[in-house]
Amino acid sequence: MNEHEIIDRIRQLFPQRAAKIGIGDDAAVIGEQVITTDMLLEDVDFTRAVPIECIARKSLAVNLSDLAAMGAIPAFGVMDLGLPPWALDKLDAFLTSLAASARQYDFDLVGGDLSRSEKLIVAITATGWVSKRPLLRSGARAGDRIYVSRPLGASSAGLQLLQRGWLEPPRELPYAQRELAESMIRRHMDPEPEVALGIALASIDAVTACIDVSDGLSTDLHHLCDASGGGADIERERSPVFPDLASTGPLLGIDVRQAVIDGGEEFALLFTSTLRESELSTRTGRPVYAIGRIARAQGVRLDGAPLRAGGFDHFA
Amino acid sequence: MNEHEIIDRIRQLFPQRAAKIGIGDDAAVIGEQVITTDMLLEDVDFTRAVPIECIARKSLAVNLSDLAAMGAIPAFGVMDLGLPPWALDKLDAFLTSLAASARQYDFDLVGGDLSRSEKLIVAITATGWVSKRPLLRSGARAGDRIYVSRPLGASSAGLQLLQRGWLEPPRELPYAQRELAESMIRRHMDPEPEVALGIALASIDAVTACIDVSDGLSTDLHHLCDASGGGADIERERSPVFPDLASTGPLLGIDVRQAVIDGGEEFALLFTSTLRESELSTRTGRPVYAIGRIARAQGVRLDGAPLRAGGFDHFA
Repeated sequence: MNEHEIIDRIRQLFPQRAAKIGIGDDAAVIGEQVITTDMLLEDVDFTRAVPIECIARKSLAVNLSDLAAMGAIPAFGVMDLGLPPWALDKLDAFLTSLAASARQYDFDLVGGDLSRSEKLIVAITATGWVSKRPLLRSGARAGDRIYVSRPLGASSAGLQLLQRGWLEPPRELPYAQRELAESMIRRHMDPEPEVALGIALASIDAVTACIDVSDGLSTDLHHLCDASGGGADIERERSPVFPDLASTGPLLGIDVRQAVIDGGEEFALLFTSTLRESELSTRTGRPVYAIGRIARAQGVRLDGAPLRAGGFDHFA
Repeated sequence: MNEHEIIDRIRQLFPQRAAKIGIGDDAAVIGEQVITTDMLLEDVDFTRAVPIECIARKSLAVNLSDLAAMGAIPAFGVMDLGLPPWALDKLDAFLTSLAASARQYDFDLVGGDLSRSEKLIVAITATGWVSKRPLLRSGARAGDRIYVSRPLGASSAGLQLLQRGWLEPPRELPYAQRELAESMIRRHMDPEPEVALGIALASIDAVTACIDVSDGLSTDLHHLCDASGGGADIERERSPVFPDLASTGPLLGIDVRQAVIDGGEEFALLFTSTLRESELSTRTGRPVYAIGRIARAQGVRLDGAPLRAGGFDHFA
């Protein structure tokens, strides 16, 4: 079974009685409450070379990003922590960092479970409150504009550099490459969830659907279209690219198109609206980027050519 | 840091603003909602020799037992699943079993996160609703009777047998020993949470405090006393022992006293009340076992001698 098939099987086996929105969106909605969970694993999602402060913040950020995609206000949650000896030695830095991040987003950690383990495991469950309404993946209609909330490509490129062992880029790199490499590595290790934007979008009726870019633009756009029952046409030209990635990325050996179109863990919001870019920017008080339109025809197309879901599947 | 010190540090770092009851009880209470989480790990909490159906049910049971200790009604929750190849092959049996158990307790699984991993990881977060009131660890007063909800010792003894490699006891064992061994192994692998009893106890005002026996009677009684601000006197004679364990356990090499007094993962409820055993049995419709009294004097005593918390500490 691949990831998609497993999720389908789970949906089949577990009736979603309590849930307005159950398995299959970024988070579940039960009454006015939103709930989601994400687990980060050593040697799957990070290595022990990554600063423990970043692991702590990211383990919360991935959950808050799911709440953001629902337009929800962070509330409280719990954490399971599997600790190997190396992480136990750094536990205070981990907890201090997590606490600062929780405070920043007004999130209360109210419980958890501790265990020793061979690899570091951080599994957080976050609940939030529906703000004006839950933002779903399923509301997009033909003609709606498709938006992303920020330039893409840095996280996936940063991961490629980390996989070369570049926790710090080599000192002999030219300045511009080193600067770019550093900021992309940081973006991968320490992503910011779009909590405020999600809440703002939920308050705008003309925003029709939303998802966070965790699997990659191509894959998450497929998810949004599948849930909404339509297709999408996007333009490569219009997809915003992380600053300097287009010019300097290739010098670092980065496949820019792949990083922007298929790269996961961006934690930008991908959403649709009947409103124009300028109006949405005004109403949210920040830039947003129109990249295409929802279409009646099934499937996702990039510059007219079919675009397959190129994101990561744990079980493919 | 040992487990206790880590939890203290977490409590210090994370303000419990949203929570009526935060870190430190069996579950947190926020408004009318109860939330808890527990994670089971391969080679820490079970081995891959254990039937996957049991792992599935136990991963939910440990959470439902926390809800039971609060007197809460199971509602909904989420699951993080880290899957190694051997477990992916048995995933359908795992999910089918988990779904049956969820149905039995009226618990809805509404979301989750999947990952590949080297070892099987099952981290469930369960929420419930406060029934009449939340049962806390902190309400016991000097003179209250101390109760356990069922005979103890089987889970810890079953674990000892499992650690000998006895998933099935050897066929050459005498019948009585084999029967006992099988039922203790089953009790360890496939525990039943006391959900109905917890809800019943919450409806009885004269029940003053409650905790589940997950760390072991001696340790959990210390927890209850610490939270309530008193001490306890219990009698070995009165502690109910799993049927045939006292007579046949020693033939299997089981230290019966240790299994009953210190053995963890019993998932019985340990609670206090001003009521007599016969009255509590009548009102709950089932046997309960008085084992001693709450005392003004700090500390826990067994037959008058100080009893230390003998339970398992992951980080001791």
